[in-house]
Amino acid sequence: MSGPIVVLSGGVGGAQFVRGLIEVVPREDVVVIGNTGDDVEVWGLRVSPDLDTVLYTLADAIHSEQKWGRADETFHCLAEVTRYGLPDWFRLGDKDLAVHLFRTAGLRAGRTLSEVTKDISKAWQLRVRLVPMSDQPVRTHVLTDSGELPFQEYFVHRRAQDRVRGVRFEGAARSRPAPGILQCLADARAIIIAPSNPVLSVQPILSVPGISAALREARSKRVAVSPLIRSRAVKGPTASCLEGLGFEVSNRGIAAVYSGLIDGLIIDASDEGDAPGLRDAGLRVGVTPTLMKDLGCAARLAEAALRLVA
Amino acid sequence: MSGPIVVLSGGVGGAQFVRGLIEVVPREDVVVIGNTGDDVEVWGLRVSPDLDTVLYTLADAIHSEQKWGRADETFHCLAEVTRYGLPDWFRLGDKDLAVHLFRTAGLRAGRTLSEVTKDISKAWQLRVRLVPMSDQPVRTHVLTDSGELPFQEYFVHRRAQDRVRGVRFEGAARSRPAPGILQCLADARAIIIAPSNPVLSVQPILSVPGISAALREARSKRVAVSPLIRSRAVKGPTASCLEGLGFEVSNRGIAAVYSGLIDGLIIDASDEGDAPGLRDAGLRVGVTPTLMKDLGCAARLAEAALRLVA
Repeated sequence: MSGPIVVLSGGVGGAQFVRGLIEVVPREDVVVIGNTGDDVEVWGLRVSPDLDTVLYTLADAIHSEQKWGRADETFHCLAEVTRYGLPDWFRLGDKDLAVHLFRTAGLRAGRTLSEVTKDISKAWQLRVRLVPMSDQPVRTHVLTDSGELPFQEYFVHRRAQDRVRGVRFEGAARSRPAPGILQCLADARAIIIAPSNPVLSVQPILSVPGISAALREARSKRVAVSPLIRSRAVKGPTASCLEGLGFEVSNRGIAAVYSGLIDGLIIDASDEGDAPGLRDAGLRVGVTPTLMKDLGCAARLAEAALRLVA
Repeated sequence: MSGPIVVLSGGVGGAQFVRGLIEVVPREDVVVIGNTGDDVEVWGLRVSPDLDTVLYTLADAIHSEQKWGRADETFHCLAEVTRYGLPDWFRLGDKDLAVHLFRTAGLRAGRTLSEVTKDISKAWQLRVRLVPMSDQPVRTHVLTDSGELPFQEYFVHRRAQDRVRGVRFEGAARSRPAPGILQCLADARAIIIAPSNPVLSVQPILSVPGISAALREARSKRVAVSPLIRSRAVKGPTASCLEGLGFEVSNRGIAAVYSGLIDGLIIDASDEGDAPGLRDAGLRVGVTPTLMKDLGCAARLAEAALRLVA
């Protein structure tokens, strides 16, 4: 079967997964549809954190421990902006600033986010096709007990401590899939939902009118990789988000979020007990270690996902 | 006599002069009207090189050898922007970027350059009042044998190598003096034109409708400090600019540029021979070493200027 392998991805987890994927398939075969729901304006610059995490990860320029931001980064500008009263809770590094300057200048010049992202990808010789979910702004807002918070206010500034009650994707109704996305999904030989936060990283992508339908109608099999291990999130607020939206914090809950959109689910070996129930619900199930401790683990996880859609 | 001491200033020379001035008078007594004719957009950011040189100099944050840019500066963002094809000939440092980000964000939010400059000055506890010549864009273009060049293209990118044939201050006709400037000039107890390039740094200020007239009508004496020593510029293209515009490269030429606008001229001790002719032309003349090798020299030069307007 020809056609691209399309991955729906948030930030760190998705990026690590795709980094493993390109160990086992040619980079040119991969299309990543990136979440832009958590894009944010920082110091007047347009920041696309998830796109950049994918970019830097695939370019092997990522900070090796934190898995986001640049390796060998410095923060001299950050230390200075506080002098002028600009906020320092969203920490942009000096090297990282360059991509935001380029993106912002491009957008102000009337180019689209996908055009600018293409140029950025080319600059890094990425060879993976990285596409924002939409060229229109879609902004994730998190409904919490402290009120509705813009995503980065919730996630970075308040460290995802607030209880999540719901999410709202501002602008989604007026947004359109970025050029080429629907065709990629139609042509795909495999569609993989990366082990990202289903609520905060994947649902924004699915909120763009047309993308869910394209997933439903795709000729290829569609598989999600569960971000849970022993019914807990490896990192981040996945569990509290699932709970807040009324989903079970389990692989059954993940399957429920993606109901009708996936043919299969990859679950961690430690959760093998979940497999029969998921199979009874009509899903293919792949059981494999899902913790991406290193590149080898990520590559084996990608292989497992590819096997499941084969 | 009360009222402020008002200095018309370009970049390095003017900044060094004012730094000396505040050694001998209270900072609060000084108003600097800064040239914004060489403002430029770099990587989508609004850069005001002369205002910033004055700012950093008066804040003792200036690079001590080059006399512009920040001390202890790094260029990690600069090294990265080239990856995206952005130009690197206008070298913005990582610390310096902060002020441009703040300025650009403020302007985009609809604030004026003088409002933003006031905030920046406050952030540095400058206590000198630093005012851009205008809140409207005025852009110096240099007419050369290679055609008309935007100022920074001529000055930084092509290293001021082109023969100067003329200057044009784009937008000047539609510009207005920044709020407070005319009143400052009217109230001033002294008006000093700093030892800046008369053509490229001071004429842009004078091109803003109303400023020349305010100088003419000021109740205080007005003195210029010559940027020439032995009829040569200490640095920069002052000589070629004077020549290109048909002025003599001498203190007589400087006096001609400022004809009708000054009561006196400070000239270097080595040019004492120019004094009689200048006095014959009706000017007060102060003869003193004008090379600002260190803060003491700059302070003594400022004192000489103040004596001449007394």
